Amino acid sequence: MTRPSLVLGIDPGTAVTGFGVVAFDGRTPTLVECGVIRTTARDPLPRRLAEVHEGVQELIARHRPDTLAIEDVFFARNVRTTVVLGHARGVILLAAQLAALTIHEYPPAEIKKAITGKGGATKEQVQFMVARLLRLKSAPQPADAADGVAAALCACVSASLPKLPELKLPTMKTVKAATAVRRR
Amino acid sequence: MTRPSLVLGIDPGTAVTGFGVVAFDGRTPTLVECGVIRTTARDPLPRRLAEVHEGVQELIARHRPDTLAIEDVFFARNVRTTVVLGHARGVILLAAQLAALTIHEYPPAEIKKAITGKGGATKEQVQFMVARLLRLKSAPQPADAADGVAAALCACVSASLPKLPELKLPTMKTVKAATAVRRR
Repeated sequence: MTRPSLVLGIDPGTAVTGFGVVAFDGRTPTLVECGVIRTTARDPLPRRLAEVHEGVQELIARHRPDTLAIEDVFFARNVRTTVVLGHARGVILLAAQLAALTIHEYPPAEIKKAITGKGGATKEQVQFMVARLLRLKSAPQPADAADGVAAALCACVSASLPKLPELKLPTMKTVKAATAVRRR
Repeated sequence: MTRPSLVLGIDPGTAVTGFGVVAFDGRTPTLVECGVIRTTARDPLPRRLAEVHEGVQELIARHRPDTLAIEDVFFARNVRTTVVLGHARGVILLAAQLAALTIHEYPPAEIKKAITGKGGATKEQVQFMVARLLRLKSAPQPADAADGVAAALCACVSASLPKLPELKLPTMKTVKAATAVRRR
């Protein structure tokens, strides 16, 4: 490996697109930057799509990631919402394709499973583990940014990249349990 | 009006995107070019999206249209299909937005109504009227190209552009009806 992998994780949306840039040396993931791309609700859709596209292009230009990790389409109850989300994903995938990134798409449950071990984990569990894996005092804010970071972490632990040994270290809970055992 | 309006009409799709470029002097629409952008089914979606996006960018660069007319999302029975179609629309709208075109989105029924007078017209009726309005011997081929042309014609007859007097001329059927009245 000539240099650490750099993964751009994206949680797509037309109103708020969360992102996280995570460096990964094969052992330890490190948060480089995270945040959100916000668009104005009263702007027409094409303009908002251009803002999302240009926001992602700027991130790619600034960090030069080699991989894009993006949430697969979440089939919302509202079909219209899902279809508009498809538009946003389209312009994000385009930005990654034009920059020749490796693209990984993950269903939401797969991201949750990679981060917490459970596909049905709550948002809070995911945020807690995102903070732990990246040695942060608290989860990235806002939640959309944390979701982008989670997508990036999912790529780090996925089979396409070297395994992440950190995931096997005891978590807070298991440390407490071990202490309890010693006290017995 | 300094020069005729030039409308790029698009019928979006990931496999086949139909297009038609129609010049409109305020009275008569004229077909400039039509065709399809085809992508390879075995290519991953991001690559196909890039091909659609670049195809539309090429059309814009070549013809310098001032307006994009595009079919609104058709809610197919298959949600997945509709969502993937949303991705294609996203990269098409993006190309138009980045080129600062005026963008008009029309539901399929509105396009049919503008061309034939009936929102529930069959594909054949639309193709017949597309050919008549553009003084062509037959409808553009393949059907996706004709759908792109129909979207462009819809923009020509819509309120945003000057009215198209041709549409008020008697069609074959109304001529026959008028004859019948005179015979009574």
